[in-house]
Amino acid sequence: MSRKPLTQEEIQEALHTLSGWSFDSNSLVKQFIFSDFREAIAFVVRLAFEAEAANHHPELTNVYNRVTVALYTHDAGNRVTQRDVALAGAIDRVASGARQRG
Amino acid sequence: MSRKPLTQEEIQEALHTLSGWSFDSNSLVKQFIFSDFREAIAFVVRLAFEAEAANHHPELTNVYNRVTVALYTHDAGNRVTQRDVALAGAIDRVASGARQRG
Amino acid sequence: MSRKPLTQEEIQEALHTLSGWSFDSNSLVKQFIFSDFREAIAFVVRLAFEAEAANHHPELTNVYNRVTVALYTHDAGNRVTQRDVALAGAIDRVASGARQRG
Amino acid sequence: MSRKPLTQEEIQEALHTLSGWSFDSNSLVKQFIFSDFREAIAFVVRLAFEAEAANHHPELTNVYNRVTVALYTHDAGNRVTQRDVALAGAIDRVASGARQRG
Repeated sequence: MSRKPLTQEEIQEALHTLSGWSFDSNSLVKQFIFSDFREAIAFVVRLAFEAEAANHHPELTNVYNRVTVALYTHDAGNRVTQRDVALAGAIDRVASGARQRG
Repeated sequence: MSRKPLTQEEIQEALHTLSGWSFDSNSLVKQFIFSDFREAIAFVVRLAFEAEAANHHPELTNVYNRVTVALYTHDAGNRVTQRDVALAGAIDRVASGARQRG
Repeated sequence: MSRKPLTQEEIQEALHTLSGWSFDSNSLVKQFIFSDFREAIAFVVRLAFEAEAANHHPELTNVYNRVTVALYTHDAGNRVTQRDVALAGAIDRVASGARQRG
Repeated sequence: MSRKPLTQEEIQEALHTLSGWSFDSNSLVKQFIFSDFREAIAFVVRLAFEAEAANHHPELTNVYNRVTVALYTHDAGNRVTQRDVALAGAIDRVASGARQRG
């Protein structure tokens, strides 16, 4: 996947394909709010599997029931690339998906 | 909470208040099936917080996307007590609850 | 445990009982560096159990193999209290302790 | 990596390269004992990353401070293959390794 920094236009287009992300400080950023700390940490674990699978790791901040995810690409001068857009999408799918199937 | 073993009648009554649990080998047992291993492990973490909060720990078995929980009370001769019923209820709430609030 | 803000003297004394923590922006702060992301996330989970047990939750930041913990007490006007010192000590024991006993 | 079942000789040779594993019920099996439940669950998470990276998943059983890992290869008729030996080695490295680098 290309590690070329996206243009402002490309970033704006990408934000339209995502849910609740914004562009801030050269990053894709989203805050997730859970019912409590336990749910927040379970989400961190779930998200971590996506990060490992993509070999791309976000900046994560947790305070109690909140998890803030910031995505940028170190190898692209800490700017946003297609890799960040892809991981943001994967995180959205994880966050919205029913955790349990049956 | 009482650590007195429940009678068969009490166990049957308790099962009616739970969702998908059965009584097997002197334990309350339920199998949870997830979409994949990642979801299964996130659930193990989420469930572990409930176990710690209750200071009561289940027997957990995981194979890929399945997590089997067996509950019994060591201090009651490995028989089912009210503590197991309470933890089963807490686990159900965790499993069914929407993970994310907003 | 008292939620009274500690004085600067008390904070300095507390730092002497801890390992690698500093006082910064009205918080007790420590950065943990691991061999990789996987170790960092396992540590987050381990630490989360301590936070839940203390019913006191840190500000956690993770980037790849780094976990930064900042401790302050919301109910004390976001200042450092004895609760923060206690949790810092618990986190140190978790971080340094051999994970496995046998 | 070959999914051909190993012969008894090959399994015995493999066990010599591992630490504390035995061959039981057509599986490579090892029990890990931790100081408490919290350490055990943190280990489950750490191990889970190895399983995902290998795309090979063990049978895990946890009771309080114990985690039993059983490895066999579904696609090889639930017999032991080189994939199980490789994952056993990875789990050993994770279990013995110092969790924290600095």
